[in-house]
Amino acid sequence: MKNTFGNSISLTLFGESHGEYIGAVLDGLAPGIEIDEDFIRSQLDLRRPAGKISTARREADDLRIVSGAFEGKTTGTPLTVLIPNTAQHSKDYSATRALARPGHADYTAYAKYHGFEDYRGGGHFSGRVTAALVAAGAILISALRNKGIYIGSHIKSCAGIRDRGFMDLSEDIERLNDLSFAVLDDAKGADMRAAIEAAAAEGDSVGGVLETAVIGMPAGVGEPWFDTAEGVISHALFSVPAVKGVQFGPAFEMVDGRGSDYNDSFYISDNEIKTVTNNNAGINGGITNGMPIVFSTAVKPTPSIFKEQATVDFMKGKDAKLSLKGRHDPAIIHRARVVVDSVTALAIADLLALRYGTDWLASL
Amino acid sequence: MKNTFGNSISLTLFGESHGEYIGAVLDGLAPGIEIDEDFIRSQLDLRRPAGKISTARREADDLRIVSGAFEGKTTGTPLTVLIPNTAQHSKDYSATRALARPGHADYTAYAKYHGFEDYRGGGHFSGRVTAALVAAGAILISALRNKGIYIGSHIKSCAGIRDRGFMDLSEDIERLNDLSFAVLDDAKGADMRAAIEAAAAEGDSVGGVLETAVIGMPAGVGEPWFDTAEGVISHALFSVPAVKGVQFGPAFEMVDGRGSDYNDSFYISDNEIKTVTNNNAGINGGITNGMPIVFSTAVKPTPSIFKEQATVDFMKGKDAKLSLKGRHDPAIIHRARVVVDSVTALAIADLLALRYGTDWLASL
Amino acid sequence: MKNTFGNSISLTLFGESHGEYIGAVLDGLAPGIEIDEDFIRSQLDLRRPAGKISTARREADDLRIVSGAFEGKTTGTPLTVLIPNTAQHSKDYSATRALARPGHADYTAYAKYHGFEDYRGGGHFSGRVTAALVAAGAILISALRNKGIYIGSHIKSCAGIRDRGFMDLSEDIERLNDLSFAVLDDAKGADMRAAIEAAAAEGDSVGGVLETAVIGMPAGVGEPWFDTAEGVISHALFSVPAVKGVQFGPAFEMVDGRGSDYNDSFYISDNEIKTVTNNNAGINGGITNGMPIVFSTAVKPTPSIFKEQATVDFMKGKDAKLSLKGRHDPAIIHRARVVVDSVTALAIADLLALRYGTDWLASL
Amino acid sequence: MKNTFGNSISLTLFGESHGEYIGAVLDGLAPGIEIDEDFIRSQLDLRRPAGKISTARREADDLRIVSGAFEGKTTGTPLTVLIPNTAQHSKDYSATRALARPGHADYTAYAKYHGFEDYRGGGHFSGRVTAALVAAGAILISALRNKGIYIGSHIKSCAGIRDRGFMDLSEDIERLNDLSFAVLDDAKGADMRAAIEAAAAEGDSVGGVLETAVIGMPAGVGEPWFDTAEGVISHALFSVPAVKGVQFGPAFEMVDGRGSDYNDSFYISDNEIKTVTNNNAGINGGITNGMPIVFSTAVKPTPSIFKEQATVDFMKGKDAKLSLKGRHDPAIIHRARVVVDSVTALAIADLLALRYGTDWLASL
Repeated sequence: MKNTFGNSISLTLFGESHGEYIGAVLDGLAPGIEIDEDFIRSQLDLRRPAGKISTARREADDLRIVSGAFEGKTTGTPLTVLIPNTAQHSKDYSATRALARPGHADYTAYAKYHGFEDYRGGGHFSGRVTAALVAAGAILISALRNKGIYIGSHIKSCAGIRDRGFMDLSEDIERLNDLSFAVLDDAKGADMRAAIEAAAAEGDSVGGVLETAVIGMPAGVGEPWFDTAEGVISHALFSVPAVKGVQFGPAFEMVDGRGSDYNDSFYISDNEIKTVTNNNAGINGGITNGMPIVFSTAVKPTPSIFKEQATVDFMKGKDAKLSLKGRHDPAIIHRARVVVDSVTALAIADLLALRYGTDWLASL
Repeated sequence: MKNTFGNSISLTLFGESHGEYIGAVLDGLAPGIEIDEDFIRSQLDLRRPAGKISTARREADDLRIVSGAFEGKTTGTPLTVLIPNTAQHSKDYSATRALARPGHADYTAYAKYHGFEDYRGGGHFSGRVTAALVAAGAILISALRNKGIYIGSHIKSCAGIRDRGFMDLSEDIERLNDLSFAVLDDAKGADMRAAIEAAAAEGDSVGGVLETAVIGMPAGVGEPWFDTAEGVISHALFSVPAVKGVQFGPAFEMVDGRGSDYNDSFYISDNEIKTVTNNNAGINGGITNGMPIVFSTAVKPTPSIFKEQATVDFMKGKDAKLSLKGRHDPAIIHRARVVVDSVTALAIADLLALRYGTDWLASL
Repeated sequence: MKNTFGNSISLTLFGESHGEYIGAVLDGLAPGIEIDEDFIRSQLDLRRPAGKISTARREADDLRIVSGAFEGKTTGTPLTVLIPNTAQHSKDYSATRALARPGHADYTAYAKYHGFEDYRGGGHFSGRVTAALVAAGAILISALRNKGIYIGSHIKSCAGIRDRGFMDLSEDIERLNDLSFAVLDDAKGADMRAAIEAAAAEGDSVGGVLETAVIGMPAGVGEPWFDTAEGVISHALFSVPAVKGVQFGPAFEMVDGRGSDYNDSFYISDNEIKTVTNNNAGINGGITNGMPIVFSTAVKPTPSIFKEQATVDFMKGKDAKLSLKGRHDPAIIHRARVVVDSVTALAIADLLALRYGTDWLASL
Repeated sequence: MKNTFGNSISLTLFGESHGEYIGAVLDGLAPGIEIDEDFIRSQLDLRRPAGKISTARREADDLRIVSGAFEGKTTGTPLTVLIPNTAQHSKDYSATRALARPGHADYTAYAKYHGFEDYRGGGHFSGRVTAALVAAGAILISALRNKGIYIGSHIKSCAGIRDRGFMDLSEDIERLNDLSFAVLDDAKGADMRAAIEAAAAEGDSVGGVLETAVIGMPAGVGEPWFDTAEGVISHALFSVPAVKGVQFGPAFEMVDGRGSDYNDSFYISDNEIKTVTNNNAGINGGITNGMPIVFSTAVKPTPSIFKEQATVDFMKGKDAKLSLKGRHDPAIIHRARVVVDSVTALAIADLLALRYGTDWLASL
């Protein structure tokens, strides 16, 4: 349903880059979930641009939870997060508003909203809106941890440089969650940053792949048709700006192999059913099997580049040239990470709530 | 909502491999859509196993539309398709029911349904259920064609063999829709079939990638957050059995490049706004831009193989060995194609109906 | 979402009076619910016309459960009920199709479906469709009983004759569920039947009020806004043909009194919180308080009467006269009773599943 | 879905009486709808307590639209209304928090939220939350007017005193919309006010019935099953605090009559199909027939009274006495009126959008 995601637990996003607030309403939360504002802020910090490899726009992200919380815990009623917009540039957007930035939503917003859209700074399409998503997601991430479910993502590749793969998932996730540039191999991370800076120096941008793992999921969650675990998670992931692909396990690699190469054999370990390999990424037939859920998200190179580009003036219906100015990210993959973790938390919390009821998330 | 997909136009799937019927209810259809039963049957034929490269189970797919149609047209009320199951083997499944087939949903069904599932022939997880999906999808595919929207898929790769890419989309789609083994390059198709037969001869299986194009979509359809065109389409695609990955345009390739390589420049052609390239696959910011929607779907190698596999007896909680017998597909990619087209039709019809209303699909 | 009701547990209805089948798909059911086909049939018998006070059309209601059941229990996958239509008259409806029966949906169907509707015998608007609803509802009613939740309705009034009110709810409900003409006071029931026959003799029809009680509901179910217990139940009730009003407790009587007359005082009884009176009908602020849910449903006089009526030919756009012939009910209130029980079961099962999860309904 | 209503157009409500803000997110709005802040404020004024017959709590209702609007018009993205809470009394609620006010949600909130609810001033159950609903509803009411659809309600009865019925709907609606105490007969209104003051003087409260008319609805809107026009409207109405009953037309009166008394004959007038009477309240078979939609809403006597009442301390599990102090409404029916209009606008806008698409509301 449009800007709302989820059935039993649902998130509604609102706000424009140059409006008074961006925000989110999280409904269906169990009462009694501890709200760790420090953790929310630390998640917002991970999303916030920082250093040379990010946009110069800096927001304080002054978070306010204005409903659904009481004495530090969720009440069970809709929880609303507001984040004021404070660092808007007062420049005049109207001069360039009809120059569609290639790879951006300027033209599609115009096609959809007939010119009534708030075009300043990307409007409702601005990555800024993800700050509200991250704040709401942080509450779910904490709650899921209390239930033994942990989510972590690393930059699997950026500008063609590959991080090492996951090894000990529990340790890797714990480590990643403290990093502002989430790589498992520090040396590769340094290479990636250098590549981002090099692209930035040329007025260009880079993309990459995020790999995410979810551990601790019980078996038996998801539906055989339509609300498959993969379908629900991917639906959420494609809301993360610049995401254009999602694969579970090594999907686009498995396609060239045989069943005997990729079937995950089951075995018993300590009275639990496990699989030797995890090519199916913790999901069989759309339903979790208790193994880690592992997926990769393709983040295209940031479309905002400084090089001159051919485009159109969509109001005049004429070809045009565009040279972007201002503040832009040469890469967003390191910032997108925490957004991916947030929507993942939302998707799996909703799947869990359908089966176990909304109270489950706060139960002991 | 579980086994239902879609808001304005919705499809509910039901049935088990060994039940009396599998079926689908399609609701939200505009009244007055012509029902071309020949076309439905031809779509079912494309899905039905045939020849050496498919399972030996053959169903007549004796289609019955038992509601929502009158005098050859949709009435606007829920349209129900029933397909009787007739070719079930009467073998005793109970002996092997607790031996989880690796890569299959036997164990996850047990975890979800506590042992009450109909385990015969894969039950509700059987690929057989897709016959109902294809029948319902055929009605949407025809209706979309009448609105100038065409969908087509080819086997982009199978067993490591690559088909040529799309060239003239309009021609390619038209041609593909008549092929039972949908490749653009016949020689590559012959190689793929040979590779499938070779795998079959070894009791093994292969996978592949389907590439789908949708032409004629108006600009301005989809939502910025959550119900992005990508999110809605991918949600539907992951219901196609064995699909483990989805990418729009060359997503997993773009990640290694730069913004300047992949941004799609706009230009004016005959007073229409187009893009020079189409790396964004017809979608910017979650919303269609009028260019073709193009995506690839990774289909893992069929998990049913005849080689002996290690597994568990999930009721006894013991390790076990499994040697499958019976009828199994060494590849399903050629059959999955029409299922992908069907869910694509469902996803885009729903997106269109949200914006234009449910009557639109039958309007002139 | 149109012909589907419910979120966690959902029911989709389909079928036309003169189609091959009417049916229902019930999704979100817990696995392991016993399916008591005898009980389903007995519920269908209660809905089926019988005797002088009902239509002469008689259907065998040959029920088939074609999915979602295995070895006498629900599997947890969508359960589909089919009921074949067998007693259609083969008369030619086309001559009178454009003569809108006053009080019926003929004209509104035409306005909505542009003339493509199956107009024979009321099509999708036929009360016949409720047979599928009753069959599906019966499964929920049984399951709720196993959880200690009982639903029962009586004909509170018919043709101006009042039944006695509920006294011992538990006893009254048990007794009502076996009656084909559900009154608590047999003498009043005899009067009502006589009044129905009198109206029938004049080619006319009568209406009435059903009063329903639900006992055993836990406190804490329902939502403060929108998905209030009252809102969800009433939404479902207005699908019962001829229902035009719903009140919880003595709502339309309370309006003339004062707060001090109708506030329900709380007290403790055996460590449980109860109310002395139950004017709020078991619901405060949209949420159940553990007391019985009690509501009344106004069923208008059946619109199909034999007296000549003024109407229009909506295809010619001309005034016309209509004299109905054929089989029609002079009253449907006694038959509507079991339909009301069925939609009530659906509404409360869905509310319960949201809070407690879908598995709850079959848990011990 | 809990605190969200609507499919194509949806409203999410949030906030607690003593939180920082109450608010609403309205999604699915067409772009380009004029936002008349004066009208929104005048609607808020109608809801706001005033004079002797309302609570002494006065809020400035300082409205802020923080997203979804640009240059005075809707953008088509989620529109968020915030209203700050400013007039909270700083009294200590904790002493009496466990004393369940009879007729209120204190105990059910506790049962649902396990004691984590914000109990101050009714929390999320406070009638205050309806201010946000009214603000959002005002935008829909204006937009519907531009499409020729008008909504108006009057106090049909209060404290047993009856207003005159609707006569010229168009004139009556126009007149009502300017009145703060919405009666058609001023003398009856004076009697009602006197009755409210009399009840207030005794520390007691009164209830009443609101009658609402919607004119200008096109024929053909609504669904035959479940999403009937009546079902959708009633679902929304039961969110209005103190509403316990809804009837369309004279439903609870028709039940005692015959079909020949209440069937609405059709006739042609100026090439339009109309009905002579309108007992079916503009709806046949769940679908609008183009006649005015007319319904009555039963508002129970306000539960907050000053007379001593028996109750329980639900945390100690003990019987107790309660004497309310502070600010309370002796009647809310005059304030509920604009809330009823608002939810009515929401329900019918959503029904219209499903059929005609979301853009329709702003189209010319």
